[in-house]
Amino acid sequence: MEARPSTAAGATAQAEPVSVPELLARGRTLCTPPLRAAIARLAPPMDAVAAYHFGWTDRAGNPVAGDGGKAIRPALALLSAEAAGADALAGVPGGVAVELVHNFSLLHDDLMDGDETRRHRATAWTVFGPAQAILVGDALATLGTEVLLDSAHPSGDRPAPATHTDAARAVRLLTVATRKLIDGQAQDLSFEHRDVVTVEECLAMEGNKTGALLAAASAVGAVLAGADDRTADALERYGHHLGLAFQAVDDLLGIWGATEITGKPHWGDLRQRKKSLPVAAALAEGGAASRRLAELLADPKGRGEESEEVLAGRAALIEQAGGRAWTQEEARRQHTTALAALDEVPMADEVRERFVALAEFVVVRER
Amino acid sequence: MEARPSTAAGATAQAEPVSVPELLARGRTLCTPPLRAAIARLAPPMDAVAAYHFGWTDRAGNPVAGDGGKAIRPALALLSAEAAGADALAGVPGGVAVELVHNFSLLHDDLMDGDETRRHRATAWTVFGPAQAILVGDALATLGTEVLLDSAHPSGDRPAPATHTDAARAVRLLTVATRKLIDGQAQDLSFEHRDVVTVEECLAMEGNKTGALLAAASAVGAVLAGADDRTADALERYGHHLGLAFQAVDDLLGIWGATEITGKPHWGDLRQRKKSLPVAAALAEGGAASRRLAELLADPKGRGEESEEVLAGRAALIEQAGGRAWTQEEARRQHTTALAALDEVPMADEVRERFVALAEFVVVRER
Repeated sequence: MEARPSTAAGATAQAEPVSVPELLARGRTLCTPPLRAAIARLAPPMDAVAAYHFGWTDRAGNPVAGDGGKAIRPALALLSAEAAGADALAGVPGGVAVELVHNFSLLHDDLMDGDETRRHRATAWTVFGPAQAILVGDALATLGTEVLLDSAHPSGDRPAPATHTDAARAVRLLTVATRKLIDGQAQDLSFEHRDVVTVEECLAMEGNKTGALLAAASAVGAVLAGADDRTADALERYGHHLGLAFQAVDDLLGIWGATEITGKPHWGDLRQRKKSLPVAAALAEGGAASRRLAELLADPKGRGEESEEVLAGRAALIEQAGGRAWTQEEARRQHTTALAALDEVPMADEVRERFVALAEFVVVRER
Repeated sequence: MEARPSTAAGATAQAEPVSVPELLARGRTLCTPPLRAAIARLAPPMDAVAAYHFGWTDRAGNPVAGDGGKAIRPALALLSAEAAGADALAGVPGGVAVELVHNFSLLHDDLMDGDETRRHRATAWTVFGPAQAILVGDALATLGTEVLLDSAHPSGDRPAPATHTDAARAVRLLTVATRKLIDGQAQDLSFEHRDVVTVEECLAMEGNKTGALLAAASAVGAVLAGADDRTADALERYGHHLGLAFQAVDDLLGIWGATEITGKPHWGDLRQRKKSLPVAAALAEGGAASRRLAELLADPKGRGEESEEVLAGRAALIEQAGGRAWTQEEARRQHTTALAALDEVPMADEVRERFVALAEFVVVRER
């Protein structure tokens, strides 16, 4: 076997391979205590609703050992601080804030979309009612801003982790991302009333709904640590394309993923006639399978009541029309673009390798 | 007639009396264009839903000449800049941001409370559905933060109206107020499941739900103009107590107001068995009328389906138990406390008189 060509990676050829589970665990370990402290600030019963939503308690309020999701965003926020040459701890308020905003959007989106399960559990609005889901979502979004602003204030005898200016820059980063998130949900909702959505429209929606917050997560730690705008912009681009790769994989899992692993209902995306990337790409292809798929999707008959067999047939049509292969290729393209953005930022090789490993994880995951 | 005792007001005895309608009109005139510009940033159809909610268009999107509410908050934000010795214009981003947050809470609260009319019109969720009301509310709250952060950025050839530090202080002020607003709504919702609420609990809820945002409105312009914390705190206290006076009057109007003036349904608060101040005070009184009222409110029979006569009888019981008089007195107490806070801030007499006139307006209004 030939030696690999000498690249930046060569310099750390003797280092341990990056462990993604450890990176994710680090994000969870460092960000969960301040996240719980932020949630504890909420007036009852919002604290209990939030604890249930985060998977910390069951519906009766008893503590449970949940997995709390993949926690990619906190891991990115910590890495982002390291990319700016700071300690990972400098990214913690960013990781907490991004996680709060992410969960604000889950609470509200589940209600708007009428989704009844998430992470193998009943969604908060089905357990506590729509009003509590709205209210707690509002509270989490607001807490996200508070946590970032607090990072410029000393706590007890510990100095403030960020300057006022950098905290304000981080708030701006998160606020703009939050608005894109909301724009993306508006686009997604509007797709429900249409039979056909173009690939471009789908990518624009997913860039807002998934790309924006991963972009913010990938830059927020660097911003809190005082990185310049050029560094922050490149890290945002990495996160944006990582988000598009993530969502392409999510769209594939939404159709062909194993429901016992994803925790999402079998054929759920197809039953809802969701305009995800594989569907948009299949409809754009224009061949026989594509045209047949378009006919079926335009037919209001049986909407939402299709049998497993009918939905399996629809998945097969999407695959025949090339929707599956195109989306797999798109995930690879976005993955490549994300890695290219990393090259614009000077950072320690070991930090770069962690970003690369996380991107790899996002593209090959099964849930 | 004797001359009035010599006070600060004496020094401007020859000045024109303050015109509250002009103060409110100034707030609307200066804040509406940037408010509309902010709304125009929203992705469709959120911009249309927001325009309907603000009363700028009818449900078909045609422009209408609505009154757009009392606009007390923008007026306060402009005055607040003047209290810090700045031009009223320095408070404009604050007035816009506070109005955005206020309308975020109206959109979400109307949905959570199931209210079908506001300002004589169908509420947004009844026209565009719950999902749009949630989404547009989310967008308005986020825009509020954006507008404040933008105030530290130059626009075209105009210099930035605020420094980065002051913009960040304003964001903190608004964010803390927004969270209190959410806490207040959580408390209000929890009251629905109870037969009795104490006066203290009611005041705490109203302090959060109404006091917090009026406090922010009364200080945000000063903060943007670089006022010190002591000035900002005193102006916040003025606004907080003004808010409690405002809400006491609102609670009175909710029972004894003329529905053709308030735009709220006749006996609406009583039909919903809302635990407002007059009810809490009447229940605390303990006499015969108070005990009879408690019995009626504890009786689940006929809830929400009481006739006009039954509700009129209930209003009479509240009045007999002293709930109306106590709340009128409470409005006066809060009004007095608000004015006392003003004395802690050195400001031009004419600015102080405007604050005093706005407070007077809040206490004597009929809608």
